[in-house]
Amino acid sequence: MKRRGYMFTGGMPDPASFPAEKLAEAAQKAVRREGGELFVRYPGDQGNAALREMAARRFNEAQRADASPEEVAITNGSMQALDLIIRAYVPRGGVVLTEELTYMGTLGILRHLDARVVGVPVDENGMNTDALAEILDGLRRAGVRPALINTVPVNHNPTGMHMSAERKQRLIQLAEEHDVLILEDECYGDIYFGEHPPRALYAEAPAGRVAYAGTFSKTIGPGMRLGYMIAPPSVMRHVMRWRWDGGTSAFASVILAEFLKEHMWEHIRETNKIVQQKRNVLIEALETELGGSVHCNPPKGGLFAWVKVLDQTDMGQLMARLEARQVYCTRGQAFHAAGADIPYVRFSFAYPSLDEIREGVAIFAECLQASQR
Amino acid sequence: MKRRGYMFTGGMPDPASFPAEKLAEAAQKAVRREGGELFVRYPGDQGNAALREMAARRFNEAQRADASPEEVAITNGSMQALDLIIRAYVPRGGVVLTEELTYMGTLGILRHLDARVVGVPVDENGMNTDALAEILDGLRRAGVRPALINTVPVNHNPTGMHMSAERKQRLIQLAEEHDVLILEDECYGDIYFGEHPPRALYAEAPAGRVAYAGTFSKTIGPGMRLGYMIAPPSVMRHVMRWRWDGGTSAFASVILAEFLKEHMWEHIRETNKIVQQKRNVLIEALETELGGSVHCNPPKGGLFAWVKVLDQTDMGQLMARLEARQVYCTRGQAFHAAGADIPYVRFSFAYPSLDEIREGVAIFAECLQASQR
Repeated sequence: MKRRGYMFTGGMPDPASFPAEKLAEAAQKAVRREGGELFVRYPGDQGNAALREMAARRFNEAQRADASPEEVAITNGSMQALDLIIRAYVPRGGVVLTEELTYMGTLGILRHLDARVVGVPVDENGMNTDALAEILDGLRRAGVRPALINTVPVNHNPTGMHMSAERKQRLIQLAEEHDVLILEDECYGDIYFGEHPPRALYAEAPAGRVAYAGTFSKTIGPGMRLGYMIAPPSVMRHVMRWRWDGGTSAFASVILAEFLKEHMWEHIRETNKIVQQKRNVLIEALETELGGSVHCNPPKGGLFAWVKVLDQTDMGQLMARLEARQVYCTRGQAFHAAGADIPYVRFSFAYPSLDEIREGVAIFAECLQASQR
Repeated sequence: MKRRGYMFTGGMPDPASFPAEKLAEAAQKAVRREGGELFVRYPGDQGNAALREMAARRFNEAQRADASPEEVAITNGSMQALDLIIRAYVPRGGVVLTEELTYMGTLGILRHLDARVVGVPVDENGMNTDALAEILDGLRRAGVRPALINTVPVNHNPTGMHMSAERKQRLIQLAEEHDVLILEDECYGDIYFGEHPPRALYAEAPAGRVAYAGTFSKTIGPGMRLGYMIAPPSVMRHVMRWRWDGGTSAFASVILAEFLKEHMWEHIRETNKIVQQKRNVLIEALETELGGSVHCNPPKGGLFAWVKVLDQTDMGQLMARLEARQVYCTRGQAFHAAGADIPYVRFSFAYPSLDEIREGVAIFAECLQASQR
């Protein structure tokens, strides 16, 4: 596939790290071994047993937890898990609380459902739970019970920060108190630089309080469309009533499971080294090219750098100039719960090469300078 | 995977026909060739270009038509196509006309949406279009505009019959007259015994009147989860607004496309021979074991035989006895739009071996005899 320009958009991992050779071998082995008896059957709503096993193993080894494969459903990326959980729990016009900045796809699903999205302020320590408490009290006074609290507590998209341990405990406590389900989107949980991210809410909250979404898209590739949700039986049964696609590919699943059985953590360690180097090069380039005129907290993990530009930046003009120069980043507005046109840009740094990162940022600097009011 | 009992349920093809060896080779080739650049990207709502190409080719060569790959979206089996099209066109409580007997999955989706399902009588020549005309007139007088007409015109599930050419033309004309979209489910279109099934409605109706659902599940295996919808841009755009899963596996898609490029029609011809033999053995066994006490029109194609049992049969008792003897068929009631407990049983005949078919029918005969009121 030909590359056009500088791709800083989308949650795409490093292409060179894609384990094509090992997956081709895994395909040989798994497809020949399983053959017709597996593939002429429907995978079922929760999907292929071998990959559910690996998803549970991944979660348990990362979280020092003991989720069972019965708690796992394989989905078309974590995206389908989000869609199913939201549709199962959010009635048309229902109220959903979420970090004020969050994944645009989640906002898209919520808006498609005409959900009332209430943004909760978020900072370097994640969702502001004092603000959350106030909002929940206000809703209770108004007699409104929220349908869901959506959060990306670890390697938050777009900011790259973690929710602090205190806030995590507070969030769980508030969700208990107001009896609201938490949708935990941890799709970037395996990508971190330095210390391991804090534990998932799902591993710490009482059973039934959290539905968890994870994926292999960010460490292998979104083209696999292999993610998963983890939830206790009561929640799983309810969510699966919204699923009518016959399940996610057992063919892709057994092949990936075959690969992961041997190589999961080794692959994650190796790709994280490469992704970390790309993050460092991006942060350096922003520093050298733009110095004081932008601000960015180096992300602790994930694939994104959340870059604050000067307040007097004409965002529309900036994005137009960038596109004209074939530098593709995502406008901050896309991540804002209320669609505010905030002076931020999200850079996705795992896909472009080191040179593309340096060149892209240099062009970005020119476009930014030319876009001041 | 261990076999338990006699599996006459589900739309499963012949396991021995699954092209494991060729798919393993295709995987080698395609995965190595495409590698990271393809698989770290999202396939997008309409999915992988190579498989869309093959889906269009399959349709055009079977239908003497000229659908473009732009009209194709790859889905998790035709099931996801049905789910998306129905959700896009049927509001909660909307009216949907369908053959009185139809695919239980479609009925499940419609019931989940609280749709008002109106069954149209169906016989050996498909949906009774005179009855359809009356129902449509009645609805018009009541000021109700149906949201959708659902049909399985070819190798109808469960009856295995085709809609006649006259009725097809009448159906199209009525849908035009009442301005209702037709959902054409042709997921068994490639499986036929003897002459080629009649042309699809999509190939004959004015553009925009029909949304078409097809699949590779029935000729390769449902475990692939690779089906597709075909629709003109206006319909496609509308339906894709309901899709939030990031698309169907590009990984599974390119591998299957690689296989189909070389082997599509040859594979279909070979498997149809095997499936036809299984059909013949089932029909013979029903005749020898049950003679006059059951009636079944030999299916013209597809994977199912629709077997009428004596009216005085206690269906609940019959199904219980069958299950106790590990003979798994599907109760006629499951296919009835209104859930009527009709004296029919559906046999799926491609999955079991020839001996399992003979033994299973012999046991069925005992259970049936013991279940008369």
